[in-house]
Amino acid sequence: MKKGVILLSGGLDSAVTLYYAKNKGYKLEALIFDYGQRHKKEINFAKKIARINNIRYHLLKIDLSWTESSLTKKGIKVPSAGGRGIPVTYVSGRNIIFLSYAFSLAESIRAKSIFIGAHVQDYSGYPDCHLQFMKDFQAAVRKGLKKKDISIKTPLIKKTKKQIVNLGISLDVPFKYTWSCYEGGKIPCLRCDSCCFRTAAFKALGRKDPIMEA
Amino acid sequence: MKKGVILLSGGLDSAVTLYYAKNKGYKLEALIFDYGQRHKKEINFAKKIARINNIRYHLLKIDLSWTESSLTKKGIKVPSAGGRGIPVTYVSGRNIIFLSYAFSLAESIRAKSIFIGAHVQDYSGYPDCHLQFMKDFQAAVRKGLKKKDISIKTPLIKKTKKQIVNLGISLDVPFKYTWSCYEGGKIPCLRCDSCCFRTAAFKALGRKDPIMEA
Repeated sequence: MKKGVILLSGGLDSAVTLYYAKNKGYKLEALIFDYGQRHKKEINFAKKIARINNIRYHLLKIDLSWTESSLTKKGIKVPSAGGRGIPVTYVSGRNIIFLSYAFSLAESIRAKSIFIGAHVQDYSGYPDCHLQFMKDFQAAVRKGLKKKDISIKTPLIKKTKKQIVNLGISLDVPFKYTWSCYEGGKIPCLRCDSCCFRTAAFKALGRKDPIMEA
Repeated sequence: MKKGVILLSGGLDSAVTLYYAKNKGYKLEALIFDYGQRHKKEINFAKKIARINNIRYHLLKIDLSWTESSLTKKGIKVPSAGGRGIPVTYVSGRNIIFLSYAFSLAESIRAKSIFIGAHVQDYSGYPDCHLQFMKDFQAAVRKGLKKKDISIKTPLIKKTKKQIVNLGISLDVPFKYTWSCYEGGKIPCLRCDSCCFRTAAFKALGRKDPIMEA
């Protein structure tokens, strides 16, 4: 059976990616990160998704306390959706660090694929989600590993949020166990970037978002 | 004042690199990693070197428990020096992960340089110490960050261990506060790769290694 490592955030994109990879026949092992995010709540959703799919996961607590992001610093407000450029929710080096761990795990368990739910259409403009970054990072990291054949797989990279939700529906992703809101409150705030992308996608498909009824 | 981030292991190479960078006028901030290494002892040496130089440091505990290395698994013996190829002391993704954190910290504190004591002459053949890896990794990571001007500095990369010790002597590096032995016992084992490179370098320079008298 093909082995893969998946970066699992607890959000919608990584859940769809997990079901996609599973559907392609991969036996997965997940990495879940507690990086001090405001929406720590997503971690429980990630664990839940891993558990119901019988996937082994590693929950890693990592310290990025130096990064000036509204996701990691209580004093910096999460902005409403619609800003321009790289928003204040940017966490310096996040995917770079996550992927580095993923390569180490993949090499160690002899997996040749790393799945990440990054995409570049309806998203917040983070530079570490771009396809060119993924390609160059893969090439560079291979030079620093013993094994030279581990690849980053980005099945969602060119999809819109609507297409991602649609793919998730076709794969029976339990969206009620995915959390997107940056605020991490009891219910989604419906005003942050992440909420707005999600809400618009479900609306465009004429579907109700199960998280709103959970 | 120029700002820099330094990867500080507690070993001889990173200590020399620190004094080199300081001598070049850098105000440094250090990253020290507890990755479950057998020679955990080196961490105290790293802290000591940071403290006597009045350098702020971040001690990060990171989980690489999946990696099959004699540095992280008690059941795997540290080999005697002189083997061929990549030795069993190889820790998958180590410098990749360390450097990823360093880029995040550097971007956050507005440092433009990351110092690492890697070298490719008298060393153990780790792929993540090679110059080409460093260059490609820097180029790739820049694509994933907001700032595009952070560089990896490898002042020791082409030096032999003898040249590194010699440079350290000229910079007054307190070698008694540096630890190289992979075993991490009370005194250096004098048979592992790391001990042998160190011992040979001091001997070639007609010097006593202060760690042997500490």
